[in-house]
Amino acid sequence: MVQSKILVIGAGGVGSIYGWRLQIGGAHVSMVCRSNFRTIKDVGFHISSKKYGDGSFLPDMVYSSAKDAFEDDQKYDYILVCTKSLPNIMNPADVLKGCKFAEGTVIVLVQNGIGIETYFHDAFPQNRILSAVAYIDTKQSKDGLIEHGERNDLSFGLYMPNKLEFYTDQNRKMCNDLVDCFIAGGAGAKVSENIQRERWFKVIWNSSFNPISVLAGGSNSTELLNMDGMENMIKDTMLETISIGEAVVKMPLSNFSNEEIFGMLIYPLRGRVPPVYPSMLVDFENKRPMEHEVILKNVINYADELGVKTPNLKVIYQLILAVESKYLK
Amino acid sequence: MVQSKILVIGAGGVGSIYGWRLQIGGAHVSMVCRSNFRTIKDVGFHISSKKYGDGSFLPDMVYSSAKDAFEDDQKYDYILVCTKSLPNIMNPADVLKGCKFAEGTVIVLVQNGIGIETYFHDAFPQNRILSAVAYIDTKQSKDGLIEHGERNDLSFGLYMPNKLEFYTDQNRKMCNDLVDCFIAGGAGAKVSENIQRERWFKVIWNSSFNPISVLAGGSNSTELLNMDGMENMIKDTMLETISIGEAVVKMPLSNFSNEEIFGMLIYPLRGRVPPVYPSMLVDFENKRPMEHEVILKNVINYADELGVKTPNLKVIYQLILAVESKYLK
Repeated sequence: MVQSKILVIGAGGVGSIYGWRLQIGGAHVSMVCRSNFRTIKDVGFHISSKKYGDGSFLPDMVYSSAKDAFEDDQKYDYILVCTKSLPNIMNPADVLKGCKFAEGTVIVLVQNGIGIETYFHDAFPQNRILSAVAYIDTKQSKDGLIEHGERNDLSFGLYMPNKLEFYTDQNRKMCNDLVDCFIAGGAGAKVSENIQRERWFKVIWNSSFNPISVLAGGSNSTELLNMDGMENMIKDTMLETISIGEAVVKMPLSNFSNEEIFGMLIYPLRGRVPPVYPSMLVDFENKRPMEHEVILKNVINYADELGVKTPNLKVIYQLILAVESKYLK
Repeated sequence: MVQSKILVIGAGGVGSIYGWRLQIGGAHVSMVCRSNFRTIKDVGFHISSKKYGDGSFLPDMVYSSAKDAFEDDQKYDYILVCTKSLPNIMNPADVLKGCKFAEGTVIVLVQNGIGIETYFHDAFPQNRILSAVAYIDTKQSKDGLIEHGERNDLSFGLYMPNKLEFYTDQNRKMCNDLVDCFIAGGAGAKVSENIQRERWFKVIWNSSFNPISVLAGGSNSTELLNMDGMENMIKDTMLETISIGEAVVKMPLSNFSNEEIFGMLIYPLRGRVPPVYPSMLVDFENKRPMEHEVILKNVINYADELGVKTPNLKVIYQLILAVESKYLK
């Protein structure tokens, strides 16, 4: 097997865990680190993981910008983009601006939300894009210090904006090679036959718990679910996202009933120790931009386009914008 | 004309201005002051008013509790209740708990919101209740120091929970006497033939600007209206309240079109100097309870009862409850 060359952009909780496991799985892993560049270049990452135990991770190469990563005509098989998607702040594809890479290089987008691929497809129309949905519980508590939980699973599929496209043998192999890399590194990975459906399923939780935790006075999952009536509002909001997603992917988002979905996404959080602090809540508390465009706005845009009513998401989105504009000012 | 004896309960911005003008108009005015009792007893109110100029107001009698105001078998023609209505914190009628007053004493409720009369009607079924809607811009900036703007108008009408009731000559006279007192004191006052309609009209603004200003990161009117999309959300929320109110009073809430209503309630606030800080926002900033029960919950209850959809108000109410529970904790 030829060693895959992988560039990871975004050296936070998600990027570092994937880089680490891919290197352990045998890949050559380069990383673009911004705020934590000095630390990672000098000593790498210290990782405390419930799934893998403690470890340290020194990438094969560390760069302070994506441009530097291509300076000496470096070639990569896969570029993993693990940054937040904030199209209202900057074009998400600008993380690769000015980088010259071959048409064969595959861009793997490990990002939450809906419509995240369009920005990269517009900027790099020749490159194949893998749309990835990550199920991972990880955060960088300080520069180079990563805390990881029990879970590390990834689904991805070829982004096919053109309905006439299909999986060629070459594309199948490209996907399977990446799956093999992850699995060799002990991560769960699979090719999804309908990645958009999985993406929509994931946004059910993100579009409800994330913004509501911020708007409810900054409340974690336990605080939210202890408030009278809040669980019902979360459910109503989830049902809106489910309706929109179903209209988009033209099939149910899962094989589960709504009540079973609540049983997966809500009930386990009742009194969970420790409580969940949704990523938007963490961003809010740190006065950082929130991913409301891809998690709410792009969802609402589909609703409007397809004539699906979504009053809760609209109010929630409007209020999130307002809250953010106050603290980013 | 016999001098009216009036007891004002709630010595904040509203109670003090009404007490002042009623005294100037010739009434005997007693006041129940709680937190500011010492100051008012000693030196009275200092009032800075754009409408009336500066002045000071020493009530004829000052009491530290409603009970004291009835101690020596005092009689009152009218009891003006100018406290906030917070039925989720305590029964609003408890401000008169243990007070013995004659059946002829009229309770005048100068409070915002819907359903505020029921608490007093249940507690004092023998007494007539006047439901009053105040149009006044006033606040107590510190104990005994009152700032008042340009406006001081009051509409009121007999609370008639029983559809068979009507204005007797005696009731007409009782209302007109109070109007005369206010007008003698330079306040605008009138008897409304449909006070519930006016009450609903006023709650159009209160149920939208008030909670939204809190949820939008604590934003005043100018900040709100400068945010993309926020004006539309406020309008949608107002339209919900209008629909509910119309279903309750069984007629339009005014003779104005919706666009004319926006022209009265929203457009004048665009860039207004100084901006408006809705009362819930002030309560939020001072970590005091907000009047969400009578301004939101009782409105939503009517919607549910009458089958009117009100998604915005439901989300807004739920989030306001959450925000309050966090800071009151």
